[in-house]
Amino acid sequence: MVTSDEHRLVPHPTPSSVTPEQFKAAFRNHPAGVAVITADAGDGPVALTATSVFSVSAEPPVLVFSVSEHSSSTPTIRRAATVVVHLLGAGQLDIAKLGATSGIDRFADTSIWSRLPTGEPYFPAAHAWIRGEVVNQMEVGGSTVVAVQALETHAPPPGDHSADAEEAQPLVYHNRTWHRLGDHSKIA
Amino acid sequence: MVTSDEHRLVPHPTPSSVTPEQFKAAFRNHPAGVAVITADAGDGPVALTATSVFSVSAEPPVLVFSVSEHSSSTPTIRRAATVVVHLLGAGQLDIAKLGATSGIDRFADTSIWSRLPTGEPYFPAAHAWIRGEVVNQMEVGGSTVVAVQALETHAPPPGDHSADAEEAQPLVYHNRTWHRLGDHSKIA
Repeated sequence: MVTSDEHRLVPHPTPSSVTPEQFKAAFRNHPAGVAVITADAGDGPVALTATSVFSVSAEPPVLVFSVSEHSSSTPTIRRAATVVVHLLGAGQLDIAKLGATSGIDRFADTSIWSRLPTGEPYFPAAHAWIRGEVVNQMEVGGSTVVAVQALETHAPPPGDHSADAEEAQPLVYHNRTWHRLGDHSKIA
Repeated sequence: MVTSDEHRLVPHPTPSSVTPEQFKAAFRNHPAGVAVITADAGDGPVALTATSVFSVSAEPPVLVFSVSEHSSSTPTIRRAATVVVHLLGAGQLDIAKLGATSGIDRFADTSIWSRLPTGEPYFPAAHAWIRGEVVNQMEVGGSTVVAVQALETHAPPPGDHSADAEEAQPLVYHNRTWHRLGDHSKIA
């Protein structure tokens, strides 16, 4: 498939010679913040843990995340008009684990979730959350990259000293382990 | 714009009442791994630091990242057929800072970059890197989300103990500070 046109456009993906193991090895050292995404498209609440959430633009306020075709929550999230993206602190590791565990009812414990006035299921204990509407989707490699424009946010107010507490420190996922950021992890 | 149809589809984004400040406050606690993306679409090499890289699928091997219309490197990356995504360890903070600094020639120091046999500029010191072809792009909020299918990867082989060294430990960006993950940051 190599042509003499060095800067050719590639209209269709060519077969990759990179194996899944090689690709995972390259990403093994790439850490990520942790989010739980919830939605209800009319067929009951779903929640899944994602390490693929990032802010694309602050004005307009847009974020993206990806969902795999292998997740049981994906059909609902792909159909939902609105979702809630929870950005988790270290104190909410239980919610992160809940959204990452297969074969359980993630909404069995009714003491940890509720519904917003607009109807979406959410976890009030999350450090911060963003309710938004799905404005675009892109299919890639059997997954869907979902773009969400924020309609409503909830975060500790600036200068809130409770935000310095250990449970509010950022949660990071890396190579099957959980980490907590703080002064102890800063590079001088 | 609120209707009685609770699960309405939203064909066009409605104006958001969330301010840029509120959106940034919600994301303030959301950390990310650090990557530098390089490309050359025929008009010279570009490099930019991104905290928006994530793996979408291992089979096929696909990743995504976003580039803002405000970055000088974006026009080249949007035109390039192939890019190199470098996933950085704590020992490569200098490369991360280089790709995040405006108004300088990021390729002035010819001792730290080179070209792959296929022509792309790259930083050989990066902990891991992935060369891939751009297979899809999605415009959202003035930014472009770029999907890249891996053609070639470079990573320390499994069991390579140099990968345990401090400089290979993951680099994390959080709220304008740099962090290093390791046993010291693990949640027990």
